[in-house]
Amino acid sequence: MTARTPGEVRAFYDAHRTVRHYVTREDGTPLPLPAEHLDAMLYAAQRAPTDATAQLYSLIRLVSPEVRARLAELTTNAHIATASEAFVVCLDVRRVGRVLEVAGQGVGHWPAIAVHFGIGDAVLAGQNLLTAAEMLGYQGCWIGGVLNGLEGILDVLELPAGVLPFAALTIGTPAEQPLLRPRVPRPLVVHEDRYRDGTEEELRYAIEVMNPIAARGDKPGDWVRLLRAYFAPSGSMEKREPGLVAALKRQGLWAGGE
Amino acid sequence: MTARTPGEVRAFYDAHRTVRHYVTREDGTPLPLPAEHLDAMLYAAQRAPTDATAQLYSLIRLVSPEVRARLAELTTNAHIATASEAFVVCLDVRRVGRVLEVAGQGVGHWPAIAVHFGIGDAVLAGQNLLTAAEMLGYQGCWIGGVLNGLEGILDVLELPAGVLPFAALTIGTPAEQPLLRPRVPRPLVVHEDRYRDGTEEELRYAIEVMNPIAARGDKPGDWVRLLRAYFAPSGSMEKREPGLVAALKRQGLWAGGE
Repeated sequence: MTARTPGEVRAFYDAHRTVRHYVTREDGTPLPLPAEHLDAMLYAAQRAPTDATAQLYSLIRLVSPEVRARLAELTTNAHIATASEAFVVCLDVRRVGRVLEVAGQGVGHWPAIAVHFGIGDAVLAGQNLLTAAEMLGYQGCWIGGVLNGLEGILDVLELPAGVLPFAALTIGTPAEQPLLRPRVPRPLVVHEDRYRDGTEEELRYAIEVMNPIAARGDKPGDWVRLLRAYFAPSGSMEKREPGLVAALKRQGLWAGGE
Repeated sequence: MTARTPGEVRAFYDAHRTVRHYVTREDGTPLPLPAEHLDAMLYAAQRAPTDATAQLYSLIRLVSPEVRARLAELTTNAHIATASEAFVVCLDVRRVGRVLEVAGQGVGHWPAIAVHFGIGDAVLAGQNLLTAAEMLGYQGCWIGGVLNGLEGILDVLELPAGVLPFAALTIGTPAEQPLLRPRVPRPLVVHEDRYRDGTEEELRYAIEVMNPIAARGDKPGDWVRLLRAYFAPSGSMEKREPGLVAALKRQGLWAGGE
């Protein structure tokens, strides 16, 4: 594949959309992808860079309608049931441990490292999968909502110790055309040599730039209101925190006390 | 950009290499990239999907020779000093907190969630940056070695609370041609509907398949030996664990006791 121009690269990333409504069969069930498309996506996932050659992730491909429906419910994301493909992208430090055991070696205790590099490897593979899907003409959606129903997901997918869902990921042919969504201005995101706090003016300007991301239909967007719902005291992130801590403990990935 | 064929997608990902030796100027200093190439890479990074619209990451672009040299030393990765571009890719929950504060809102307490989605967002952006670089004809290298010198890196880059390095990332024109590296066979990585443990036979076969990844020069590779150095008791992951825990505490990202 010959190199692309900067304009082509920008155009490719401009075409990225987060899509939650996909083309289905007439009866509303998922429209299967051609086998060679799925194969190329999984190939791209596995070619992802990985920490220390270990590939600290697993992909749970959701196939049966029952499991699809259950995961759609547990994550409150209906498109998990209707997308052409749906995955739960997991950090997985179990497999490398079993490789060591089969070879007669012991496994160390490094739970904070497991989360750090395990999420890293999971996201590297998952984002390669999504990017490959976009190259093939599909769109997708990363789903943080797995954190709304972690305990149930561990049960349904029978995830053993050392394995934890990072997020779900759906792929399909878009049945909606979302607008290009804004991003925080680059000077607040890309720093040179040391971290620089944005000024109050810059942060206020970022809010203005970001407001359209929260628009719904005719209503003008209010980004701070959206962020508040997630990140403020009693927001959804605080509500998710104990469930994540409990899942980390259950899966043997907890670096804190007791 | 029109859709690519599955063969083209596979060829693109087959061309990915982890490269640690880059073309430099004659005096050994970094060869600058054309401004529009750097711009397209940063654009791709910012177009990455993000949790809850919050963009929980920052990129620290390493510019001055002094900071480049210091980070090369702290991570024990010399190519940080010589690559065309070098970044420290950080999770950043500080900026969204400051946005809320500027808008007169409080910020909740969700440190485990911060690590989960913060590493996620950092890797999504960083992997988009690397993929865009590869589209433009460059190669790069993710560097987990930031975990060898976290405390020093926090100091040198002046990273405030809420910000933690995930890894470093170098980009440039390859001055070496590494072979394609093997991956664990797909049936051990991609599961259907529920987690499936590989059999002992499958794991032994995976070791055979992976052995070449540990080859150095004429020496045949021994993957288990490499994994043992990282993941076994007293391996480098156990050695890195206390430094990561200390950094999580220092940066206000610790979900465990005291």
